[in-house]
Amino acid sequence: MHRDPPRIVIDRAVYSLPDFDREFDKKNRHFPIDEKVKKVFRCSVSRLRGLLLRLLPVLSWMPRYRVRENLLCDVISGVSAGTIQVPQGMAFALLANLPAVNGLYSSFFPLIPYFFMGTVHQMVPGTFAVLSIMVGIVCSDLAPESDFSHFNVTLNATQVDLERMNEVRLVISGTLACLTALIQIGLGFLQFGFVAIYLSESFVRGFMTAAGLQILISVLKYIFGIHVPAYSGPLAVIYTLSDIICGLPKTNVASLVFALVSAVVLIVVKELSARYRHKLPFPLPVEIIVVIVATAISGPLNLPAIYHMDKVGEIQLGFPAPIVPTVSQWSYMFGTAFSLAIVGYVINLAMGRTLAAKHGYDVDPNQEMLALGCSNFFGSFFKIHVICCALSVTLAVDSAGGTSQFASLCVMLVVMLTMLVLGAFLKPLPKSVLGALIAVNLKNTLLQLSDPYYLWKKSKSDCFVWVVSFLATFFLSLPYGVAVGVSTSILVVIFKTQFRNGSAITQIAETGIYKNPKVYSKATSITGVKIVNYCSPIYFANAEIFRQRVIQKTGFDPVKLLLTRQKFLEKERRGQAQEEKQEHARRRTITSLVTMKTQTISQLDLQNDFDLEDGSACPAEPPLSYINFGCRDGEGPDQRENQEPAGPTLQSHPVPFHTLVLDMAGVCFIDLMGIKVLMKMNTSYKKLGIRLYLANIQAQVHQELEEGGAFEDGHVSRSDIFLSVHDAVLFAQKTATERTKEANVAQEHDFDFTDETDLEKKMF
Amino acid sequence: MHRDPPRIVIDRAVYSLPDFDREFDKKNRHFPIDEKVKKVFRCSVSRLRGLLLRLLPVLSWMPRYRVRENLLCDVISGVSAGTIQVPQGMAFALLANLPAVNGLYSSFFPLIPYFFMGTVHQMVPGTFAVLSIMVGIVCSDLAPESDFSHFNVTLNATQVDLERMNEVRLVISGTLACLTALIQIGLGFLQFGFVAIYLSESFVRGFMTAAGLQILISVLKYIFGIHVPAYSGPLAVIYTLSDIICGLPKTNVASLVFALVSAVVLIVVKELSARYRHKLPFPLPVEIIVVIVATAISGPLNLPAIYHMDKVGEIQLGFPAPIVPTVSQWSYMFGTAFSLAIVGYVINLAMGRTLAAKHGYDVDPNQEMLALGCSNFFGSFFKIHVICCALSVTLAVDSAGGTSQFASLCVMLVVMLTMLVLGAFLKPLPKSVLGALIAVNLKNTLLQLSDPYYLWKKSKSDCFVWVVSFLATFFLSLPYGVAVGVSTSILVVIFKTQFRNGSAITQIAETGIYKNPKVYSKATSITGVKIVNYCSPIYFANAEIFRQRVIQKTGFDPVKLLLTRQKFLEKERRGQAQEEKQEHARRRTITSLVTMKTQTISQLDLQNDFDLEDGSACPAEPPLSYINFGCRDGEGPDQRENQEPAGPTLQSHPVPFHTLVLDMAGVCFIDLMGIKVLMKMNTSYKKLGIRLYLANIQAQVHQELEEGGAFEDGHVSRSDIFLSVHDAVLFAQKTATERTKEANVAQEHDFDFTDETDLEKKMF
Repeated sequence: MHRDPPRIVIDRAVYSLPDFDREFDKKNRHFPIDEKVKKVFRCSVSRLRGLLLRLLPVLSWMPRYRVRENLLCDVISGVSAGTIQVPQGMAFALLANLPAVNGLYSSFFPLIPYFFMGTVHQMVPGTFAVLSIMVGIVCSDLAPESDFSHFNVTLNATQVDLERMNEVRLVISGTLACLTALIQIGLGFLQFGFVAIYLSESFVRGFMTAAGLQILISVLKYIFGIHVPAYSGPLAVIYTLSDIICGLPKTNVASLVFALVSAVVLIVVKELSARYRHKLPFPLPVEIIVVIVATAISGPLNLPAIYHMDKVGEIQLGFPAPIVPTVSQWSYMFGTAFSLAIVGYVINLAMGRTLAAKHGYDVDPNQEMLALGCSNFFGSFFKIHVICCALSVTLAVDSAGGTSQFASLCVMLVVMLTMLVLGAFLKPLPKSVLGALIAVNLKNTLLQLSDPYYLWKKSKSDCFVWVVSFLATFFLSLPYGVAVGVSTSILVVIFKTQFRNGSAITQIAETGIYKNPKVYSKATSITGVKIVNYCSPIYFANAEIFRQRVIQKTGFDPVKLLLTRQKFLEKERRGQAQEEKQEHARRRTITSLVTMKTQTISQLDLQNDFDLEDGSACPAEPPLSYINFGCRDGEGPDQRENQEPAGPTLQSHPVPFHTLVLDMAGVCFIDLMGIKVLMKMNTSYKKLGIRLYLANIQAQVHQELEEGGAFEDGHVSRSDIFLSVHDAVLFAQKTATERTKEANVAQEHDFDFTDETDLEKKMF
Repeated sequence: MHRDPPRIVIDRAVYSLPDFDREFDKKNRHFPIDEKVKKVFRCSVSRLRGLLLRLLPVLSWMPRYRVRENLLCDVISGVSAGTIQVPQGMAFALLANLPAVNGLYSSFFPLIPYFFMGTVHQMVPGTFAVLSIMVGIVCSDLAPESDFSHFNVTLNATQVDLERMNEVRLVISGTLACLTALIQIGLGFLQFGFVAIYLSESFVRGFMTAAGLQILISVLKYIFGIHVPAYSGPLAVIYTLSDIICGLPKTNVASLVFALVSAVVLIVVKELSARYRHKLPFPLPVEIIVVIVATAISGPLNLPAIYHMDKVGEIQLGFPAPIVPTVSQWSYMFGTAFSLAIVGYVINLAMGRTLAAKHGYDVDPNQEMLALGCSNFFGSFFKIHVICCALSVTLAVDSAGGTSQFASLCVMLVVMLTMLVLGAFLKPLPKSVLGALIAVNLKNTLLQLSDPYYLWKKSKSDCFVWVVSFLATFFLSLPYGVAVGVSTSILVVIFKTQFRNGSAITQIAETGIYKNPKVYSKATSITGVKIVNYCSPIYFANAEIFRQRVIQKTGFDPVKLLLTRQKFLEKERRGQAQEEKQEHARRRTITSLVTMKTQTISQLDLQNDFDLEDGSACPAEPPLSYINFGCRDGEGPDQRENQEPAGPTLQSHPVPFHTLVLDMAGVCFIDLMGIKVLMKMNTSYKKLGIRLYLANIQAQVHQELEEGGAFEDGHVSRSDIFLSVHDAVLFAQKTATERTKEANVAQEHDFDFTDETDLEKKMF
């Protein structure tokens, strides 16, 4: 900090908001809705051109593409990334319970629309494990193996018609992709790209970790070469795990060996290439090498047949014939499709934003949603499963210096080559190799299991969201996990606004700064003025809590006090009327005092009633508070409202404060319920002769108060709003002194109640 | 406002938060979790006694009950309210598709536990139309009429075994009540009474109005005496309505006459008794009079048989035999039960709070939840349907001066009398009379249809919640309505925090007050300091929006600027290296200037790229901003970080500001995502030589920053936090002057870049 700090010297008048607005020329700013609507629907050539450029970003980047500088980089990075895309796509097709060729389709067709529509230059769309496993559940649910198995008498065994099953599942997968795509396109056109922000980072990490664990468990069957039935719904992962553990004795050793060797090679090469990253021009395509070597060993030696290993099998060469989605299945798929649409989009956007920040361009969230939707839509007719961003492929493109979608064009070429020619050679590749490939890729995801430990230290609520998202995703299922996680993140926000603690504040020395005196010991107390701050929006879910906090911090509930007083006065009046009838002459003598005493006792009774009820509901409220207030004066609140707000009597009796200042700086919005509570508080304090001042109101909150009618019909007076707490306090102090003077004059008139007050004082 | 306002005179040092804390003795307040836990689980006699008193409020009010004063009032109000409870209960049983006797059970058994456990003195639990209709849907769903109809050959007509159907439905109703009760008890014990506050008033009113319309439509069949099949699920109400309209020609005129006459009598008497309310000792029991008269006319004349009118039928006298709920049906009922539990509780609590405020006592929300749960639980074994507060009965008790649960004891007695003796006489009562009774009671609910009109003027968002809740409830179904309405209310809160507009603010005259210069014309601009306020919590859903707002208000994106600069410098350095090789002697001559020009152009290209991307994403950002920043100095940001944060160069080049102050007064909480964004912004501004100061941080937000690690590892310096915007600005201005002096000395060293800057200046 600086040695010789500058000083603040201010000398200005105390401002209430209307004064301030008058003195400094407040302008009225209007934003009429019809103009906004007009603006949205205005039509012009430049707008149309802008729209076209937005919908097809290729039109803006292609003409400016510098071939000489970037093309070589793009081609190299694209081809090397393509060699990752091919094995990964095939592996993830296994997760989706689909034939390997589906992975190739998914790695090819969606890239075509994205080339024209994508706004992230380095992005390569493709398969993503979490989405694949969600698709897999739907596939095995709608087309279970049992539907395609029949008992072959000659072989004396149950046989599964794999070919027909795969055919049916491919159509299901396409149907699901089509529905997902339509949801994404719809959300994109409605400019609902912002739904992504409801997925808080804590949720996404918890969800991804749980999904990673589920993926690991589901590839174990390929690694160990065991056959386990498919489960779905809550706890499916537990059943699968127990089946795998039970099946361990039947492990296919050849599969396991293939998996372990591949895994070791993958891990070692990846670690090495990470270490010598700077010396390599592009990342080593170790995946494709492992796949080629495994195929080369397994094929010629005919190992799958000898050791009964699961192999990838026939890959249909050529482009697939387009299909029509089975719309009738959509009603069953809707929940999963919605989860897929949102999760896919969020992954895509997160990756896109990271790349954009790295390279300094912007990502249009809505356009990205549209691009992803169109990619899925186009692909869905060619039997793909839902895709989003192919994480490791995109990273490979980026780290090899790719700068544009031309890189993803090269990825497409590599995939097409495999699809049309090379696929035929991959037939003998053991599935366990692909399983190992998936498992190795999960490393980073599973490292996130330590997240809660770090989160707990930094923020309990974020930790809570993580854990809930993780548990819901892992034990229930992925779509449930999305629903539970998102609701939890949102509810946590609501919670945070609910359980904020208001605090009484007071001036620190003579600085004009107001802070909680419990925190700063050098606080000066201000007689007659109570200041409470509250740091949260005031709306339906916490309006009542806000009122309770103010009651707690000020020490009494104005409504109850008014009621107590009213009841007492009614009785008193009734009592007096009786007395007047019975003993006309002896008014204001000892008898009267005795009657008053019993009345006071019954009032006490009533208060005890309250205190007991209070004790359970909010024990922090000091019960003595409204005993002090007892029966201060002889006026009913109805009579009083026509007078000056009870200035005189306030000064002649022991009152804890004459002004309550609410510091509204932390109130960032207020809804109708909040306004209602504020108006009610204002009314009841007014009846007690206490002024309610509002200070530090945010401009937007002021507007909400205005629109909500807080200033109508004399609810809250505009001149009770002050620019700062200090303004309000100084004003209150000054007017209070003036009120005291008036009170001294007025006091003589209500002397007949003073003995009553004395009586009360003696009783306590 | 006051004639002669007091003045604010302040003369103090500028404080950063650490300075302030040091000077005024900040105390560290710790609230360790383990102590909190201990406190919760502490066990003592007084605590146990408190618990007992809380669980059984009867123990606290009964001993203090003043028999002489209140008993008479309680008995009178109770008996008169009982005469309302009986016909209403029977009528609502019709809504629940149950026999009329179920209404009597529901009006009797639940009152017993509530007598002991209820905290609202005047409350009478009983049937409530909205709950009854929700129960009705479950009953007709699980036990449809078709299950009990068989073709009678001798009569040549389909006959329904009404008796068995009613039997089955009573068990279903009891089962549903039991599940609802368990949910309520569970929530009560978990102290989840606060869930009620998620039901905003706008939602409740929209929901109730839609429910009222649904009730009206469902009693039309009784009024017109038409038989329509029961529908359930979305759009059920539309099907029912169209069936009723189609069935109108078959109207049973006798039923209609009975209904119309009853309705007219009810309306007239109610209007009259409302007008002469003050002169009547207790409300007229017009409902029971109508029922008795209708029975007396219909019975002796045998009208139901003659005109084929639907009548109430046999009412089983005596107490029902207890049943065991069919637990297996619970999984189907869960959604409805949860809605019932919450809605019933909210109605109960709203009524309870109104009464408590009127009479000056407190309602314990959790205890009320428990009491309601236990009432439903006890009743569920006696075939009741779910109850909550019987609105009109409770109001009758209150307006007749009832003061305690003794009134509801009297209600019980009246219901019991009907159940045991009088029920036999009600057999010939036409159902259409009960239908009319329900319809007349809906008057106030249907008046709420004008709500949106008033809400629109006061608050668009509340109006939106109302309309969505109404439409979802009316067209989908009541449980869906609850789900949709609650989510909408919560999402609206999230929306409100998302689309808050930050604004640039500046000092108004010399007041030390900072406001938006667009609103106040007498604003003084502060050279070199930019101040932005943001009035919303900063958390996952708006952290990115917050960053965008700051960029928009300050005029440039620090990350992009850094990147542009970095790229340019890299090229420049590469270019210079080449030059040095080629032409060793001719450095800093005209040739060099030409090379620089082409570089500047290609940098411009890059910027245009960005601007185009920007244009679509956030068009408000002025594109010129970082052209000014172009290539300000020859140092790469990496080199610069080791120096003083670029003070010298800042002063020697055209920079819009050297300090950015964020006014955090309106930020009421911040989560980890928010902290992350704040830290990132701090880092990137620092790299540009711009200081980021935070002002007006709320105490709780400061704690969250602390826990979230914002002050660790030199992310944000504690001394960059100021007590107010004015402190920060004065400090920034003073240090900036000092930095300028240093800069003047330093400037001589980097003169070789000034000609480059001149070049840039000439280009634009």
